[in-house]
Amino acid sequence: MKVSRMYAPTLRQSPAEAEIASHRLMLRAGLVRKLVSGVYSYLPLGYRVIRKIEQIVREEMDRQGGLEILMSALQPAELWKSSGRWDEYGPEMFKLKDRNEREFCLGPTHEEIFTALIRDEVRSYRQLPLLLYQIQTKYRDEIRPRFGLIRARDFIMKDLYSFDRDEAGLDISYKKMYEAYSRVFKRCGLSFMVVEADAGAMGGTDSHEFVVVTDEGEADLVFCKKCGYAANVERAECIAQTACCYEDLMPLEKVSTPGMRTIEEVSEFLKVPASKLVKTLVYIADGRPVAALVRGDRELNETKLKRFLHASDLALADEETIRRVTGAPVGFAGPIGIAARPVVADLEIKGMTNFVVGGNAEDLHIRNVNVPRDFTVDAFADLRKAVEGDPCPRCGSPLSAAKGTEVGHIFKLGTKYSEALGAKYLDENGVEHPIVMGSYGIGITRTVAAIIESNHDEDGIIWPMTVAPYHAVVIPINVIEQAQFDLANEVYEKLLAAGVEVVLDDRDERPGVKFKDADLIGYPIRIVVGPRSLQSRQVEVKLRKSKETQMVGIDEVTDYVVEVIRREIAALTPS
Amino acid sequence: MKVSRMYAPTLRQSPAEAEIASHRLMLRAGLVRKLVSGVYSYLPLGYRVIRKIEQIVREEMDRQGGLEILMSALQPAELWKSSGRWDEYGPEMFKLKDRNEREFCLGPTHEEIFTALIRDEVRSYRQLPLLLYQIQTKYRDEIRPRFGLIRARDFIMKDLYSFDRDEAGLDISYKKMYEAYSRVFKRCGLSFMVVEADAGAMGGTDSHEFVVVTDEGEADLVFCKKCGYAANVERAECIAQTACCYEDLMPLEKVSTPGMRTIEEVSEFLKVPASKLVKTLVYIADGRPVAALVRGDRELNETKLKRFLHASDLALADEETIRRVTGAPVGFAGPIGIAARPVVADLEIKGMTNFVVGGNAEDLHIRNVNVPRDFTVDAFADLRKAVEGDPCPRCGSPLSAAKGTEVGHIFKLGTKYSEALGAKYLDENGVEHPIVMGSYGIGITRTVAAIIESNHDEDGIIWPMTVAPYHAVVIPINVIEQAQFDLANEVYEKLLAAGVEVVLDDRDERPGVKFKDADLIGYPIRIVVGPRSLQSRQVEVKLRKSKETQMVGIDEVTDYVVEVIRREIAALTPS
Repeated sequence: MKVSRMYAPTLRQSPAEAEIASHRLMLRAGLVRKLVSGVYSYLPLGYRVIRKIEQIVREEMDRQGGLEILMSALQPAELWKSSGRWDEYGPEMFKLKDRNEREFCLGPTHEEIFTALIRDEVRSYRQLPLLLYQIQTKYRDEIRPRFGLIRARDFIMKDLYSFDRDEAGLDISYKKMYEAYSRVFKRCGLSFMVVEADAGAMGGTDSHEFVVVTDEGEADLVFCKKCGYAANVERAECIAQTACCYEDLMPLEKVSTPGMRTIEEVSEFLKVPASKLVKTLVYIADGRPVAALVRGDRELNETKLKRFLHASDLALADEETIRRVTGAPVGFAGPIGIAARPVVADLEIKGMTNFVVGGNAEDLHIRNVNVPRDFTVDAFADLRKAVEGDPCPRCGSPLSAAKGTEVGHIFKLGTKYSEALGAKYLDENGVEHPIVMGSYGIGITRTVAAIIESNHDEDGIIWPMTVAPYHAVVIPINVIEQAQFDLANEVYEKLLAAGVEVVLDDRDERPGVKFKDADLIGYPIRIVVGPRSLQSRQVEVKLRKSKETQMVGIDEVTDYVVEVIRREIAALTPS
Repeated sequence: MKVSRMYAPTLRQSPAEAEIASHRLMLRAGLVRKLVSGVYSYLPLGYRVIRKIEQIVREEMDRQGGLEILMSALQPAELWKSSGRWDEYGPEMFKLKDRNEREFCLGPTHEEIFTALIRDEVRSYRQLPLLLYQIQTKYRDEIRPRFGLIRARDFIMKDLYSFDRDEAGLDISYKKMYEAYSRVFKRCGLSFMVVEADAGAMGGTDSHEFVVVTDEGEADLVFCKKCGYAANVERAECIAQTACCYEDLMPLEKVSTPGMRTIEEVSEFLKVPASKLVKTLVYIADGRPVAALVRGDRELNETKLKRFLHASDLALADEETIRRVTGAPVGFAGPIGIAARPVVADLEIKGMTNFVVGGNAEDLHIRNVNVPRDFTVDAFADLRKAVEGDPCPRCGSPLSAAKGTEVGHIFKLGTKYSEALGAKYLDENGVEHPIVMGSYGIGITRTVAAIIESNHDEDGIIWPMTVAPYHAVVIPINVIEQAQFDLANEVYEKLLAAGVEVVLDDRDERPGVKFKDADLIGYPIRIVVGPRSLQSRQVEVKLRKSKETQMVGIDEVTDYVVEVIRREIAALTPS
């Protein structure tokens, strides 16, 4: 490919809209362009990278016995109504009607239609296990699209669904995918963590996320350097720490706290540390008001509360509801006498004595509150968000925190979808069972972003060889000098003939412009043909990653480049 | 691939819903399954064929300098409003709103968003020409989805857009695509015709369709065996034939035709051939009633009428309008005194004398009508549908008719989109011009159907080697016989090692079942390992297409198969 014929509109300036490095660099290197918020066009270089990742994913899925198919993004509402997710999925699902007023959605995921396909075709245990996958565009109407390809409204995903006869079979399929995912991300040049995750709207039991740790990222993680435990904070377990010292229970005391509504204000006003306060949060869970209590200096983890309540919908209560259940305006909610049920308290509250709560009346708080003396807790549960320094739930060592980007997610679904949609098989004895399922996703376009997040410097992208849009660029310093240009072209043609994916920067531009573009786009190997190359019969070969530069003879350059490519791909290939 | 691990649910029975051979065979061979009307899931074998066609298309686009990108199917309404097509496109366009009530469509085509991309990136003549393409899913809400993948509501298409500085550049791009398309279809094993076509909703001037002639098909064609002229009947020109003989003009005569509303009834009743009648059809063109006249035995071509009137919307008038403009119920419309303008008559009517028309009153017709004596024609135009036997508009020989399936369509768009959306470039002198565009589509999924339409027999599909899901199948007669199975496996492994795409039918099924499946799925090469293969060290190799059978030694079979594949692919490869 000649650069003059390429369509890679690079930008010198960082676009204002881009918040993180991968987003900035994808725009600047001409890999993508925004069509509308959260919807991108993939330009030639970007799409080459995407297709390389797709191919790696395809090879690893096939290696585990996966079979590739392709389903429509247009999915009939009926299947989603059967699984109960038509309403459950919420406004993230794009919905539409056809000319006959029939309802459809643009698939945010494909559990329902894969299950329906299998239901109509699989009858016998002999047809199982089955691993079916597709690489396809998904649609999710994110409330706040951001970070470029990381949180987009349409994105390319590989989704595989496993169909097994029982849990033991599912365990095997799950392990296969765990291995396949590890191989995929290794081949893409990514360092990743596998963390325990919440199954969310998928339902099911076990769930793991493959997360690339990056400086900036949309996922918050905690992990233990000692035992290897790692989890998304949405999911990370918190173990209750016992109180440091025992206090005698003191008598209840009402205190006037005029206009003091926040933890900070009350803590400051009463000269009591936030850790001696208990926050009472009123939520609406599936239409009912509930109260959730956490220590004043902690953050409530809504995912945990939602799971604990088995709620399909959970949101903070509105002002009016708060006034109704507490009798007071927002800011003074407390557990004593609250008209919300259940009252669920974080495990930590068990060990607390003489704490401060809201008084359920305007400008009122109460001191020296104790459980169960002063109010009833319906249940204690792990409700709080894990933070750096918390004891590891496995070994007790302090947890570390990190930011990351989720690139893969695997779920054990069990029989949720097969039962809802009637996907069954007959065993050896003619007995009918629901098929046991798993669901496994890789965000292909998100993986591009994660690769750039972890592989860039101030000059641009540093592609791993396995996914680089091209392996090498040949730059003649001055294309007007015919002999120099011919020599560059000779090197280019030889590399092409050797199977190297190479571009020739044949533009009549200053060398600085071409070098800058080469660094920005991030070709792993740069070959410069200059005026001295003619006499010396040598060219300069520079590796983007190590910045290592070497003069190589014209006759050796093809072998040299082929060897660098081979070595770098080998280093990323799992055995 | 082992057949026991494959997912190819074959059917013994022809599904009732399937109207034509390709649809029946795609369902029976387990290539696709219907999700809802006009929406299909592509199963593993079907998707392998699709991916092979995609690869052929990609290679031929790249060969002409095409650059592959990928755009979203989700397109903002604003761009379609700028081009005027948001309303013009009609109910075939799926429309939806996002969570912020912003309007989108699911792209039925991508002229607008490619133009908008270029508008924002291309400034100078130096960046032109540019050929950008994608292989992507399109959505069209067909009023009557049918013929399986031939007229589906979502389908995979390759669409390329050319951007040139002038008409001369467009001519070059158009020729490149013409050549690329010819190569693609040849490589897919298709015989095709290139026919003149109507540009329809695309606008623009020149337009050609690549049509595969098949027994059953959705397109009607006429072609001249003598001079090679070919056209879709929507577009085919009709030249007026002069009247056979001259008649004296006779006086007008009103005749009572009680209850006679159709041409057949009137012709029978008056004992006058249909060719002596003139039909008056009332249409609503962009809201206005117009009258179109064609000879009684001819069919009006709405595409021609629409184009002649430059109408963006054309439909037969409703009963009430007919009553209003003719003063009579449906069935008695005539040109004399009709309150619809313009009155457009087919060219043939020029040469007619003493003909019969409706009388614009119930149960009335009029004989011996003559133009311009009895009524005014605002314009004569070519309005009728061409039929077999019509004189070729180029050489006058009688035309032949055929059915076909359109697999490709190329359009010269000119500056319609670049002007509407403001895509301009500066020439050498700094003068601004609109970019001159072309649009070129290949229906990938439709091509699968066309290949099957032209390559099948009563037993199943006969894949051309270039697009077969696998090249060969190895069938052991009896998998329980260990030695026989081992020998089959040995042949299979050797073929795999030689790069042959081969499957091993390792199922414990009767040979008849396996042979039937092999013929139905249509592997080009079938290798049977039977009980006698053990002593003779020979296997039976049968070619699906020629039904030619040969005994080949175990040690030669790999070379033999590799050579058959090479030869058949070479035969389909243009020089």
